[in-house]
Amino acid sequence: MKVGEDQLVRRIVKAALSPKGGPWLALGAGDDAALLTPRPGYDTILTCDWFLQGRHFLPGKHPADSIGWKCLARALSDIAAMGGQPRCFLLSLALPDKLALKEKGRGTGWLDEFLGGLRRAARRFGCLLAGGDTTQRREILINVTVVGEVLAGRALQRSGAKAGDRIFVSGTLGEAELGLQKLRQGARVSPRNDRALRKHLYPEPRLALGQWLADRRLASSMLDLSDGLSSDLPRLCAASGVGARIQAAEIPSPKVSLGALRRFDALGLALNGGDDYELLFTVSADNAPRIPRSFQGIALTEIGEVTRERRVVKVQQDGTTKPLLPRGWDPFRK
Amino acid sequence: MKVGEDQLVRRIVKAALSPKGGPWLALGAGDDAALLTPRPGYDTILTCDWFLQGRHFLPGKHPADSIGWKCLARALSDIAAMGGQPRCFLLSLALPDKLALKEKGRGTGWLDEFLGGLRRAARRFGCLLAGGDTTQRREILINVTVVGEVLAGRALQRSGAKAGDRIFVSGTLGEAELGLQKLRQGARVSPRNDRALRKHLYPEPRLALGQWLADRRLASSMLDLSDGLSSDLPRLCAASGVGARIQAAEIPSPKVSLGALRRFDALGLALNGGDDYELLFTVSADNAPRIPRSFQGIALTEIGEVTRERRVVKVQQDGTTKPLLPRGWDPFRK
Repeated sequence: MKVGEDQLVRRIVKAALSPKGGPWLALGAGDDAALLTPRPGYDTILTCDWFLQGRHFLPGKHPADSIGWKCLARALSDIAAMGGQPRCFLLSLALPDKLALKEKGRGTGWLDEFLGGLRRAARRFGCLLAGGDTTQRREILINVTVVGEVLAGRALQRSGAKAGDRIFVSGTLGEAELGLQKLRQGARVSPRNDRALRKHLYPEPRLALGQWLADRRLASSMLDLSDGLSSDLPRLCAASGVGARIQAAEIPSPKVSLGALRRFDALGLALNGGDDYELLFTVSADNAPRIPRSFQGIALTEIGEVTRERRVVKVQQDGTTKPLLPRGWDPFRK
Repeated sequence: MKVGEDQLVRRIVKAALSPKGGPWLALGAGDDAALLTPRPGYDTILTCDWFLQGRHFLPGKHPADSIGWKCLARALSDIAAMGGQPRCFLLSLALPDKLALKEKGRGTGWLDEFLGGLRRAARRFGCLLAGGDTTQRREILINVTVVGEVLAGRALQRSGAKAGDRIFVSGTLGEAELGLQKLRQGARVSPRNDRALRKHLYPEPRLALGQWLADRRLASSMLDLSDGLSSDLPRLCAASGVGARIQAAEIPSPKVSLGALRRFDALGLALNGGDDYELLFTVSADNAPRIPRSFQGIALTEIGEVTRERRVVKVQQDGTTKPLLPRGWDPFRK
């Protein structure tokens, strides 16, 4: 007698090539819980992320392969934001019957494709499947817990920014939102040929950059840009008890063609677009010259300064100053 | 400008009294991720569990206080099954607007009650809120990740059972299922006065028993009974490469009154009822006499024996033997 849930778990474990053990992972998926042997001298980083049908992805628009890649990649961005290295993850997956179970040799192509994207991300970022939970549901629900490590005492937090620190961002902001808009409008381009679409479907957490900043003690605070600069910068400022003044002209925004410019507001995308998974970090004035213009091909741009006054403002291209209103992604916005 | 998600997170952190730090928890809820300092000489245990409206609870039937308690308690049962001690948890919560946000001083009573139950369980079982993720959803979705610790090398796994080992269970099996049936039938009793209802709404993970068995190296294998003995015992046998023979007459089943007996099959409940969160463990014949009849008021009952032959059978009260079919909880059963 076949038990449905056990069949699904076997397929996940097989596809994700979860090891039975290893020096760090004493026991992988399949028991009541995973068992990890922490590395001496390291702290453990722990984070989890929802990834839900209808809210974070649309099965009709988003390839299953991208859903598998992105559910892990975006959770790993929080490990990058602490300056850590990924170690393992737990996958909680709720699926409709027809996506979960093979019957009479048919299906499920969706699950194979999803697990393929997940496996590629797991290998790319060095993060092993250690366990999880599965159940049946009308809609696809995903929750990913990621465990990472960081040298004890070196983790970068949101709360370390000081007045006078310089504010930096990695990469180009707003590209993922541009990619989402293209996808929604039914753009018939492949992510191979379209940078914005690729960034929306297959984000790359800035793990190497985060580790480099933490290992060298270069940054005073850091977070990852998941909801958009206008929402995330005020969070960093609130945690640090400071304000910020950013220069609109310095914000690295998407390059769009003239035709597209009529429809897209590049600065608006860069300020308010979510899902970028770039790093926002502050650096003391003394350390700022040690930040290169790019790191492993990713641009690092100084966009402003931390202020004692607890307001977050943007200096516009005409020299006037306006408050930066949090207009990034908020699931509870009406 | 208030940001909805930040408001919800503040309420959760405040209600759950998450500490900003401590000797073990370097950084609690509020940053990109939680930061834990592992205890030297201990392995880390990691597990997660879905708890979903309509599948695992019904908001019209289940008090919010019970939903808060149970989402943590059931995840902790996997820590008990490894012989570990709880340390901290992550809460992933998706809620409808009207449950998540206070507006004009009104609501949300549901959230307060939910967080109250969660806080009581967190204090009772010594497990701190370390972080999580929130989002908006039509239905209530919960996923809980729990972190525990166990002395290095002492964790109890499913795979250690050997032919000749005795099979034990803690407590009474089937009570939680009986409680669920009472709840479904609209029983107007308080959980204070009804043991089965209490067990369904406020389960108690067998943490002290699990630790005692692991610390003294008394058990050869262990898992927690979440789906029902008939589904969970075959999983333990499969992981250990063995079979089992259990005595139907020995299985501790719910005491029901004569009137209720007409409606309930006590042995069926004990074999197939889910949500008990009791421990199923095997003990070598040499160690079996060291297992007391009860531990801290919880009965420990020998129900059968591990066999070399890889079949799981039950010996019925008339002496005949039948295969034990997995008829416990399976979300994918048709």
